[in-house]
Amino acid sequence: MFGTKGAMTSARLVESMLDLIQARGYSGTGLNTVVEHAHAPKGSLYFHFPEGKEALGEKAIELAAARFRALVIDSASEPETPGDMIARVIGVLTGILTDSDFQLGCPVSVVTLEMGAQSERLRDACANAFESWITPVTEYLIAHGHPPAAARTLATAVVSMVEGAMIVSRAQRSVEPLRCAAHALTVLVDQRATEIAETSP
Amino acid sequence: MFGTKGAMTSARLVESMLDLIQARGYSGTGLNTVVEHAHAPKGSLYFHFPEGKEALGEKAIELAAARFRALVIDSASEPETPGDMIARVIGVLTGILTDSDFQLGCPVSVVTLEMGAQSERLRDACANAFESWITPVTEYLIAHGHPPAAARTLATAVVSMVEGAMIVSRAQRSVEPLRCAAHALTVLVDQRATEIAETSP
Repeated sequence: MFGTKGAMTSARLVESMLDLIQARGYSGTGLNTVVEHAHAPKGSLYFHFPEGKEALGEKAIELAAARFRALVIDSASEPETPGDMIARVIGVLTGILTDSDFQLGCPVSVVTLEMGAQSERLRDACANAFESWITPVTEYLIAHGHPPAAARTLATAVVSMVEGAMIVSRAQRSVEPLRCAAHALTVLVDQRATEIAETSP
Repeated sequence: MFGTKGAMTSARLVESMLDLIQARGYSGTGLNTVVEHAHAPKGSLYFHFPEGKEALGEKAIELAAARFRALVIDSASEPETPGDMIARVIGVLTGILTDSDFQLGCPVSVVTLEMGAQSERLRDACANAFESWITPVTEYLIAHGHPPAAARTLATAVVSMVEGAMIVSRAQRSVEPLRCAAHALTVLVDQRATEIAETSP
């Protein structure tokens, strides 16, 4: 649809929107700030996103969803225990928090909380983002011996715990809540695997 | 400091600020909307909160913190298992989500994510809120046989899981993530207590 330059501008706008949502949320992010942050020409935003802020926000959520999904799938690719997978994901998130001096958060959480009551389009993008993380964790747990229904329950709890721990860690400016999450989740995912192994014929 | 009427207006302003933050976050809540929502006289906001929005937001966070803390302490007052306590807290939160048609979220999470990088005062209020919930859960788990350090880790994980599950449930318009959180947390808090009971002399 656009030439290379146009595609690059569009990608920079989405990337800037994502950066700003992570730091300060959706409502507090003005479109002029997005254009400045992206070093994009004035007018480029309405050229690439004629539907405006909601469409740009949706693309930012989709980008965040794809990145975290890639991290989950990458962390699940080594033939280790589920606890090792959890530790690797939480290790990366801990690095993001400390490298940013606790200034970044999950964009999907904040958009859910700000826009869930106001924009079905953004709420739907957030629901899909969470689902895109729960699904590969479920598949991974099934591959490691958890029964399907239990794996889905546990994977949903894993995603919830990681989301919550990111928030509590950011508020407290401490990685301790993420460490506690890793510990609790490891008990859950590995112990179950152990139980299953022990009760297998 | 103020007469009864003044105190009531002040309380209504804080209550309205809290309602609006729960529905749409802090940045998207304008002060004119707060005054209208509170049916308060124009000018009352700067009379009661001369420091402005940040001071009002801080009071709203403190109110939310005190309420959820009361729920935790109340749920912990019956001599049942930790799993029953978790189920009671999550039951109340599930009711809040379904009664509001999934339009309400945790005000402390959203203020952390929106303002954590911009207001030390609000971030600090959020950190204190989380701490005011982690502490009674820790004490409750200790009273139910968990060693102190393990109880603190587990209580931090409980608060993180509940926060995250509220968000995923709201995005997905489903109480399933809260149900998954209750299940996983019950395994964690009761199984540990069982382990301790089994290894006690």
